[in-house]
Amino acid sequence: MEGKAPRIPDSVVRRLPVYLRHLQSILENDVDTIASQTLGEALGLNPAQIRKDLAYFGAFGQKGVGYDVRFLILSIERILRIHRDVPVALIGAGRLGAALCLYNQIQVRSGQNRMRIISVFDRDPAKTGSVIGNVAVEPDTHLESALRSRNIRIAVIAVPASDAQEVADRLTVAGVTAMLNFAPVALRVPDSVHVRAADFTSELQSLAYYAFDE
Amino acid sequence: MEGKAPRIPDSVVRRLPVYLRHLQSILENDVDTIASQTLGEALGLNPAQIRKDLAYFGAFGQKGVGYDVRFLILSIERILRIHRDVPVALIGAGRLGAALCLYNQIQVRSGQNRMRIISVFDRDPAKTGSVIGNVAVEPDTHLESALRSRNIRIAVIAVPASDAQEVADRLTVAGVTAMLNFAPVALRVPDSVHVRAADFTSELQSLAYYAFDE
Repeated sequence: MEGKAPRIPDSVVRRLPVYLRHLQSILENDVDTIASQTLGEALGLNPAQIRKDLAYFGAFGQKGVGYDVRFLILSIERILRIHRDVPVALIGAGRLGAALCLYNQIQVRSGQNRMRIISVFDRDPAKTGSVIGNVAVEPDTHLESALRSRNIRIAVIAVPASDAQEVADRLTVAGVTAMLNFAPVALRVPDSVHVRAADFTSELQSLAYYAFDE
Repeated sequence: MEGKAPRIPDSVVRRLPVYLRHLQSILENDVDTIASQTLGEALGLNPAQIRKDLAYFGAFGQKGVGYDVRFLILSIERILRIHRDVPVALIGAGRLGAALCLYNQIQVRSGQNRMRIISVFDRDPAKTGSVIGNVAVEPDTHLESALRSRNIRIAVIAVPASDAQEVADRLTVAGVTAMLNFAPVALRVPDSVHVRAADFTSELQSLAYYAFDE
């Protein structure tokens, strides 16, 4: 299938949502076509890079005309498999988890994202039964059956580091194939599962490398 | 200087905090040396990859013995420039900003991170004067002078998308050279400034690509 060839670099996959967001915003301003040059200037990226990125997925642009904005939006959404509603689970309803969940609800309501956190789990009985925005926090005891019956393949891990590996193991058993991990710990998962580390401390620490010149 | 050669791939720089965290945790358990094989198994990474990563910065390991854990920790900390306290600014004291700030304070207190958010700014008068953990929220009117006088080079952007470019411009003027951007918008900055995108929506959307096989 298009877009599933494993040779597409992760760096390209990660730029696609950035393109998508900008294309959505210019469409609101009734811009119908855009040149890679203009897109590059707006995003601070090299136009040749943009053309190369999009060429991975087919020939979208027309020489001298540029890209059809609507068609490019639909194409990127299809490539990312977000041209339909995508259910997401959140494990961990602490401060960070709650902030992410509320933020997600704002994005979904505004039409900027079709990936919606529909299920939130926590092992703390003090949290279960409470509501984050419009989602109730469920006990994690029936995590596996809930994820399976709701056909959830993507999960956000926002539990303490000490619990994260156990959560990842359970998610794997439940059929989750992609995890966004905010816990500051490296997770061991089968090759068939994709994990992205998103913990704040690591992000900050790797950034320090670039901050200092002396 | 060691570690500042621009050819080191960002993917390597990003793995260093992961190595660091694991090394710190095994040192607590009195493990003095570790083989790349063992490190690889613990982190779910290829040992050859680990050896290659660390070779960018010099020859740390000894054949048949492995890496000296203390020495490796110090080396990675120096490479990342986090062998000393590093002050960080946070712009935006909303829900996400506050969660990140409190999380950072936990990490710093536990000795897991020497990068500390020492200054928080917000443009909303209703927020300024309030306190997040042990840091007071300041008005953003004196952002530039405050960052300069406190010698802050790293900033976390957690403002709405509509404000993020203006904040990035002001941070650049104030001498900030590395930014972690949680706002869902691509920022235009001079080449001398390093920006890392960390917005939740983009992370989720690019993850969807890996989640679905059909």
